[in-house]
Amino acid sequence: MVKRTGAQSELRHRNLSLVMRALATEDDLTRATIAAEVGLTRATVSTLVDELLAAGLLEERGARRPGTVGRPGTALALAGTGPAGIGAEIGIDHLAACVVDLRGEVRCRTESPAANRGRPAASVLAELAELIAQVAKEAGALDLRPVGTTVAVPGLVSRDRGTVLRAPNLGWEDVAVATALGPHATVVENEANLGALAELWLGDHHRLADFVHVSAEIGIGAALIVEGRLFRGARGFAGELGHVPVHPEGPLCSCGAHGCLETFAGEEALLRSAGAGTPRELRRAAAGGDPVAIRALEDAGAALGIALSGAVNLLDPQAVVVGGPLADLAPWLLPGVRRELADRVTDRQWRPEDVVTSRLGRDGVLRGAAYSAVRAVLDDPAAWIHTAD
Amino acid sequence: MVKRTGAQSELRHRNLSLVMRALATEDDLTRATIAAEVGLTRATVSTLVDELLAAGLLEERGARRPGTVGRPGTALALAGTGPAGIGAEIGIDHLAACVVDLRGEVRCRTESPAANRGRPAASVLAELAELIAQVAKEAGALDLRPVGTTVAVPGLVSRDRGTVLRAPNLGWEDVAVATALGPHATVVENEANLGALAELWLGDHHRLADFVHVSAEIGIGAALIVEGRLFRGARGFAGELGHVPVHPEGPLCSCGAHGCLETFAGEEALLRSAGAGTPRELRRAAAGGDPVAIRALEDAGAALGIALSGAVNLLDPQAVVVGGPLADLAPWLLPGVRRELADRVTDRQWRPEDVVTSRLGRDGVLRGAAYSAVRAVLDDPAAWIHTAD
Repeated sequence: MVKRTGAQSELRHRNLSLVMRALATEDDLTRATIAAEVGLTRATVSTLVDELLAAGLLEERGARRPGTVGRPGTALALAGTGPAGIGAEIGIDHLAACVVDLRGEVRCRTESPAANRGRPAASVLAELAELIAQVAKEAGALDLRPVGTTVAVPGLVSRDRGTVLRAPNLGWEDVAVATALGPHATVVENEANLGALAELWLGDHHRLADFVHVSAEIGIGAALIVEGRLFRGARGFAGELGHVPVHPEGPLCSCGAHGCLETFAGEEALLRSAGAGTPRELRRAAAGGDPVAIRALEDAGAALGIALSGAVNLLDPQAVVVGGPLADLAPWLLPGVRRELADRVTDRQWRPEDVVTSRLGRDGVLRGAAYSAVRAVLDDPAAWIHTAD
Repeated sequence: MVKRTGAQSELRHRNLSLVMRALATEDDLTRATIAAEVGLTRATVSTLVDELLAAGLLEERGARRPGTVGRPGTALALAGTGPAGIGAEIGIDHLAACVVDLRGEVRCRTESPAANRGRPAASVLAELAELIAQVAKEAGALDLRPVGTTVAVPGLVSRDRGTVLRAPNLGWEDVAVATALGPHATVVENEANLGALAELWLGDHHRLADFVHVSAEIGIGAALIVEGRLFRGARGFAGELGHVPVHPEGPLCSCGAHGCLETFAGEEALLRSAGAGTPRELRRAAAGGDPVAIRALEDAGAALGIALSGAVNLLDPQAVVVGGPLADLAPWLLPGVRRELADRVTDRQWRPEDVVTSRLGRDGVLRGAAYSAVRAVLDDPAAWIHTAD
């Protein structure tokens, strides 16, 4: 192998990543269309593509006639084998694990119901480890090699230490998740953050790089994407939409304050005012035209809209994305959300279509977790090429 | 002159800027302490410093004994002559202009009362142009050479086009400010943004890189500093704290919505509920113990605290800085602000000392405007060295 200088090697790493990320955004590009897209010469791209093909990170898909004039090129795609990412999710009442390939496709998945609230963390983590081992084994049979695992938790995490600092709905404080699951390749991340990243990476709304993502399981989970990156805040606690005051003299919240969004639009409050036992029941009642359920959802939508109008006035995002379990309730929540935003956003016209529903649904968090391990490969494919040598 | 390659030249530009910015943050550094601070060798720093001294951007201040062992070095400082910045401010009832030197010191300043509300823009800009010409002339006599002018306006701007898009309190729509004042070196910027940048660049709170800055003249002006940069949002409209809903069914706001922060803590609302005619009167009444004035300020502080607690929950800044004219009222506003933040910020303990008052006072915006032109010199001193050749 030719010895390269530091700067040349850095440039090559960056260019390899440019090619991989171009193909992650759009399928079936040719060497020529990649060159045009990333701003490199056709010859440079050919060399890079050959290297990535040899390493098994790309594959060829046969001739493709370009839309414009010229010879047909060979369509390229990210490989469906090789490096992959494992995602794992600790919910209040379930555990799940999956493997995605370089393309972000879910290749294997397992889930089991579990009453995790108040259950000893060691027992939860032992069961999760089994699910992870199971999907990792299945992945191996598909010629996929997982390069990392990301665990989604409904709580506050220290990513550096791989711990859950506090997850009140699980009853966890300072739980060393990464240590329990294999510290070298395990990342621990808040589920709301992963939901937003999933939308950024895998969602339908391709051009969105600045948005507020709102979801909910028990609490309201929100996260901010700014200039294509997760906005974490100075200490990593940004995105707490659930405790934005909506009616400051309103009901007492679990956080000790009054009138937080969560007291109007959190799952517990919503189910209570709708007279429903579960989110599924609530959805069914609303779909069946039950006026109490519909009214409860409309009121929750208005509260969500009030909190979001504050967020939009402060942050000026391109859009608000409603995702996760909330997306199922969007038909009844969105009118109130849109009305409040239209009334309260001042500096620009806020249009109904600036509030969008995610199509990733309930699987967004788990797919985002798995794909975040894959992102590391897209960001530095050279590291993987060396490993494969 | 030795011909340099592109990469070498880029490196030199960056290193010159590192030295300038180190001295902008801390006075009286020596070549050795700069080297330690910016991570370059003593020899490299010496060459850079010699070049900056020759260009008149730095000056020597005589021997300084270092705190630790070693020979005394020569203390260095940014020059008090040479490149300078002009700031200009269009207020509702005044116009002002000033010049700051490389150190950020105000070297000349002029101000004139003016009833700008509803006055023709051309007339306002003609008068402002005279003030600018006056301070520019005074600067020349002090051996200062202004390199740019920034105009602060109470409204929404298009920086690219150098226009005010909308300034309701002036009655302006689409006013081409830069064209009127000399398009090449004139930048137009929102006053709240400049107040926040002034705090970042010139304030007492040196280590703050993530904060919400709140001020007020007629409206509530806020701006967000994130990782040491102004956070503008997707379309440049971020920071609209004044229209965050506080009591959603509250009084009608000028924006058409109900219960915005501005309806509780904006100048007009505040003066009305305090029974005062001007902010100065209000301050005097509060300082004299007038219970109506004090109560009005306490209520406004609570409303401000409710809106800010939403902002802090969303953004997780290190601190909230109360600046501009609001800083004068801080003794009466801050208790309410601090109480609401302590009650409503969830994920971390919010301490009273995380709300700070700016010491830049009413001059913050004007100084920030002038210094933003100087920043261009600090960021690329090489450009100025060539001009001086």
